[in-house]
Amino acid sequence: MTNNVPTTMKAAVMHSIRDIRIETLPVPQIKDDEVLVKVMAVGICGSDLHYYTDGRIGHYKVEKPIILGHECAGEVAAIGANVNRVRVGDRVAVEPGVTCGTCEACKEGRYNLCPDVEFLATPPVDGAFVQYIKMRQDFVFQIPDTLSYEEAALIEPFSVGIHAAARTKLQAGETVAIMGMGPVGLMAVAAAKAVGARKIIVTDLEPLRLKAAKEMGATHTINVAEQNPIDEISKITNGKGVDVAWETAGNPATLQSALSSLQRGGRLAIVGLPAQNEIPLNIPFIADNEVDIYGIFRYANTYPKGINFLSSGIVDAKKLVTDQYGLEDTMEAMERALNHKNECLKIVVYPNQ
Amino acid sequence: MTNNVPTTMKAAVMHSIRDIRIETLPVPQIKDDEVLVKVMAVGICGSDLHYYTDGRIGHYKVEKPIILGHECAGEVAAIGANVNRVRVGDRVAVEPGVTCGTCEACKEGRYNLCPDVEFLATPPVDGAFVQYIKMRQDFVFQIPDTLSYEEAALIEPFSVGIHAAARTKLQAGETVAIMGMGPVGLMAVAAAKAVGARKIIVTDLEPLRLKAAKEMGATHTINVAEQNPIDEISKITNGKGVDVAWETAGNPATLQSALSSLQRGGRLAIVGLPAQNEIPLNIPFIADNEVDIYGIFRYANTYPKGINFLSSGIVDAKKLVTDQYGLEDTMEAMERALNHKNECLKIVVYPNQ
Amino acid sequence: MTNNVPTTMKAAVMHSIRDIRIETLPVPQIKDDEVLVKVMAVGICGSDLHYYTDGRIGHYKVEKPIILGHECAGEVAAIGANVNRVRVGDRVAVEPGVTCGTCEACKEGRYNLCPDVEFLATPPVDGAFVQYIKMRQDFVFQIPDTLSYEEAALIEPFSVGIHAAARTKLQAGETVAIMGMGPVGLMAVAAAKAVGARKIIVTDLEPLRLKAAKEMGATHTINVAEQNPIDEISKITNGKGVDVAWETAGNPATLQSALSSLQRGGRLAIVGLPAQNEIPLNIPFIADNEVDIYGIFRYANTYPKGINFLSSGIVDAKKLVTDQYGLEDTMEAMERALNHKNECLKIVVYPNQ
Amino acid sequence: MTNNVPTTMKAAVMHSIRDIRIETLPVPQIKDDEVLVKVMAVGICGSDLHYYTDGRIGHYKVEKPIILGHECAGEVAAIGANVNRVRVGDRVAVEPGVTCGTCEACKEGRYNLCPDVEFLATPPVDGAFVQYIKMRQDFVFQIPDTLSYEEAALIEPFSVGIHAAARTKLQAGETVAIMGMGPVGLMAVAAAKAVGARKIIVTDLEPLRLKAAKEMGATHTINVAEQNPIDEISKITNGKGVDVAWETAGNPATLQSALSSLQRGGRLAIVGLPAQNEIPLNIPFIADNEVDIYGIFRYANTYPKGINFLSSGIVDAKKLVTDQYGLEDTMEAMERALNHKNECLKIVVYPNQ
Repeated sequence: MTNNVPTTMKAAVMHSIRDIRIETLPVPQIKDDEVLVKVMAVGICGSDLHYYTDGRIGHYKVEKPIILGHECAGEVAAIGANVNRVRVGDRVAVEPGVTCGTCEACKEGRYNLCPDVEFLATPPVDGAFVQYIKMRQDFVFQIPDTLSYEEAALIEPFSVGIHAAARTKLQAGETVAIMGMGPVGLMAVAAAKAVGARKIIVTDLEPLRLKAAKEMGATHTINVAEQNPIDEISKITNGKGVDVAWETAGNPATLQSALSSLQRGGRLAIVGLPAQNEIPLNIPFIADNEVDIYGIFRYANTYPKGINFLSSGIVDAKKLVTDQYGLEDTMEAMERALNHKNECLKIVVYPNQ
Repeated sequence: MTNNVPTTMKAAVMHSIRDIRIETLPVPQIKDDEVLVKVMAVGICGSDLHYYTDGRIGHYKVEKPIILGHECAGEVAAIGANVNRVRVGDRVAVEPGVTCGTCEACKEGRYNLCPDVEFLATPPVDGAFVQYIKMRQDFVFQIPDTLSYEEAALIEPFSVGIHAAARTKLQAGETVAIMGMGPVGLMAVAAAKAVGARKIIVTDLEPLRLKAAKEMGATHTINVAEQNPIDEISKITNGKGVDVAWETAGNPATLQSALSSLQRGGRLAIVGLPAQNEIPLNIPFIADNEVDIYGIFRYANTYPKGINFLSSGIVDAKKLVTDQYGLEDTMEAMERALNHKNECLKIVVYPNQ
Repeated sequence: MTNNVPTTMKAAVMHSIRDIRIETLPVPQIKDDEVLVKVMAVGICGSDLHYYTDGRIGHYKVEKPIILGHECAGEVAAIGANVNRVRVGDRVAVEPGVTCGTCEACKEGRYNLCPDVEFLATPPVDGAFVQYIKMRQDFVFQIPDTLSYEEAALIEPFSVGIHAAARTKLQAGETVAIMGMGPVGLMAVAAAKAVGARKIIVTDLEPLRLKAAKEMGATHTINVAEQNPIDEISKITNGKGVDVAWETAGNPATLQSALSSLQRGGRLAIVGLPAQNEIPLNIPFIADNEVDIYGIFRYANTYPKGINFLSSGIVDAKKLVTDQYGLEDTMEAMERALNHKNECLKIVVYPNQ
Repeated sequence: MTNNVPTTMKAAVMHSIRDIRIETLPVPQIKDDEVLVKVMAVGICGSDLHYYTDGRIGHYKVEKPIILGHECAGEVAAIGANVNRVRVGDRVAVEPGVTCGTCEACKEGRYNLCPDVEFLATPPVDGAFVQYIKMRQDFVFQIPDTLSYEEAALIEPFSVGIHAAARTKLQAGETVAIMGMGPVGLMAVAAAKAVGARKIIVTDLEPLRLKAAKEMGATHTINVAEQNPIDEISKITNGKGVDVAWETAGNPATLQSALSSLQRGGRLAIVGLPAQNEIPLNIPFIADNEVDIYGIFRYANTYPKGINFLSSGIVDAKKLVTDQYGLEDTMEAMERALNHKNECLKIVVYPNQ
């Protein structure tokens, strides 16, 4: 079944570092269990910028032209013969990693560790700065009319926070410190609020980001350019330290602060990836205080929860969208994200507007 | 109630670094909820040696004469008016840390994190190189006749392994790597065997320790003086890595190996305390593989299990006792532990023989 | 330290069934680790009414005059020599069960299963319909000025809901059915709201109670006198059933409904105690759907959370207080609770007003 | 790839109640992700007997001829184009339920609750009393040469015990009561042994089964024809009760005994399905003792563990095979299972011998 789908479409194709060109490509063919999504909103993520400026992240390397973008939402334009979860015309959020469903990790419910995942905009898989994408039906989730496409695209970074909350067993009433207020950190504040954290303490260098954190639900903000985060967190928690800390900045000093901010028996999530591999951590502190440390890699089983939380009005995530571009201006959007990063929170590209 | 308890006793008192003297002290008075234990066997632990040579461990400092020794077992010689868990004449293992029972950590079942714990041989609390000690009744556990006092004393280091197994959720059938075959590491092998780990891979530099590990249940031994542990573990696990790793050596390179030996979703326990605080860890490895890292500080609720496991004959822990001394030779025992560490596994002092 | 404490006080003493007399008793003497609390508010609980009308609950039997009441809060009037958690003059909530702190259940953090607990108003332990009570310091919790004594007394029934939420692992975003809107059920609604449940479906027969449930946070109310709860829950959940159900009414049919309302893999808490012991449950339903069922007995480690939740304004629990009495009218209060139960939500007695 | 596969095969087809006929059918065609298994051993299960005598189990009804049998193992005879987990000639155990891999239950790791599962010998899906079956590659598990096909077939009932152990969190050193020593109960004993349970107490009426239980690892056997199980369990546990109980008999009185045998905080698994739906359970006992009850429906993620446990020699499961038949005698095998049930433990059919 289809919905007046054209045969060709426009795509923003990255040919090499800092070189994105608008091209005309055939609209993808879908298999029986796949859905064709007309892409309505795509957020720009830090990983898109990495590929755009460096051509690689770790061992993932751009070796031929690629379409970036993986935070997306849209309208179902066509469905395969076996699709029964969504209908043509449905408004949907797209979970961008398609997993095998049959390996040990998938079978045990940790499908984010599937070795055969195909993740949008991770080379060599194309992403969502394009008018139509295809996706296996179990990674497409209907959203209510009250949720905008921008918000639905934000479910992706929100998922990281929801997953960190689950991994660190953040409980209602607990105190959490979230370090780094980029989009992942900001949506992590929303996740902490959704699960009922009482004190949500955030850190960053940029007043714009700290202000946005307040709007997402932060109860205390610390500008680390002006204040010592450990001292401030100690004051806020009456010298006790936080139950849980999440590091989202990928910064060595921030990671060390996050660890030091914990109370005995505290739990730390490592979300951000630092530029260098080896970061010194205080091992006796970890042992003596029986700290738990949890590595975070993407997320699993978060989309229904994320849609649920945003639909219930827990936060107004739309406030994070500071910049809006059409598909033909994708490269300009990327450049703005790079050159004016302290003026932007989330930049959204609209491929069909 | 008492059992012919004398009024004075001999004690091995450390006056300063490398200076232990045998002195006569009054036998302790017990309170209504306390038990007087005639000490029959005390193991020498690495922390005893640290205090003996350095006079301190971290912020714990020997500031006045102290009696060392905390791995002990004995016979109940007298009980207070309210004691109902043991009787005079019972053979008992002694859990050496008395906790408050009323703080948040105690109430939640993590009493090893009690800030007010009084732990034998941790300054300023005296320990067990002495003929009689008193102990609150809930830290004294009856042992069956089939268990020797030496084995009962070994429940203490065994407890660390049992606790690491619980914290890292080591399951029957899983593969575990245990790094460092000192007494804690050796008893950790026994703990891994008790919970049904299938492959128990151990590393050390000393053939004597690796041989003992085999007797405790190790299925694979790696001499890191001759072999690369990561390569060997990779071979043993068909390139997959282990489910769980425990670092007990307190060595930076060993900790890094332990981390690297994990499969995706693997779990690491940090048991050993390194001499320096800051150890570099591979953060992207932790994040990308969703590693869990658990700090281990002593143990909680392990004594009944430890007695249960040793009583069921899971291992013959007596084989670890390589050296035996009377109380008057405590200092000689300490010197031997220091100077011939590669000939000794566990040295036991017998204060009443 | 004391605060002008008199030597005698008034108490509402139950001499036999439906016979409560106001008497003058000596103010209790406190031990070194105890606190004397000037009782400011005491809620009447269903168990108080049971003892009042039947003289027993299960094997607990009133065999000599007893003071009832266990949901209480007050002001610290004196503290023992070793008390360091509260000061004279502090406003406090009182957790009514004093546990041994040393048995296996206490050590493992499940102190509600302590066999030696002494629980206020459970024979032969006296309760709180009295001007002063003594309590071990670790069961007395300071409350902020913003919390009234009535609310602090309500932490007790609130605790049952908080504990049920923990036992059934109720997660933010999930759907819960709560059966029975007595005070425990009503405060359970508040607990479900505090942990972020999205749909909170409640059942009862009384419009007054269903209306109060709405004020506590229920999103859907079902009057079982008029509607079939299974059908209604099915509609609300699009035929899927709820994630979690809590039965608080102690009614066989209600328990069966609670079970039937679950989705596959759902979780059920049994909170209410039925008059008869044996209730038929659908065993193939439990097995085929892998239902988890959790018995709930009081609570553990809930007071700090309860104070935290009420202080954060999650609900206005004061709205549940429908009736207020002085200590001298305790018997009248009990009779009103019995005879006008459908007009009353929570009746509070004020012993010092 | 294939291995000399014929085009037709023999099958034992049930046409109606107690009417099984040997027929010649085409060998199944496999898809790209499927494996053709030459069936070497098939165990007869209680559910096979139910369909054979009643034509139905619950809402599953035999409405056209069906091949029974779902506990099976064999040799890989051919593989589809995309199969990479096994090779032709591999010896394999077959997990009999193929799940969708894409629904919420599958994604969360509880694939046994997948609503779209296709389970061998559950109408209308054909089973394994046949020479060749096809199976999706992720439900076929290579076994080592040391494991016989009979043992590999027994992984299926073993899986139920492994799953019950996981659901009830049975820990090494704990005490478990297993009620009912049919094949599922007997293999559950092996599962309890594998995870390190110390006391394994079993009940049944038949001396043959109790003797077999001893061989599987039971430490205590109770013949309920002669002894009161509650009294005996109380004696064995010094009046305390067991940590965990599993009911596998599907008998109301046995289920009530299993519940009563628990200590405070104990955990009960409901494995057996009773003939009637509603069984009276003691609700105040469940609530007052904070019992956990877990419904058990098949299993998930157990095959690798089961192969691991049996390969490690934890038990000699071959001892359970009391009767052996060729495919042409399948009906005779079924009749023997029905008419001599107290002489048989596990009856195995060999379709290719």
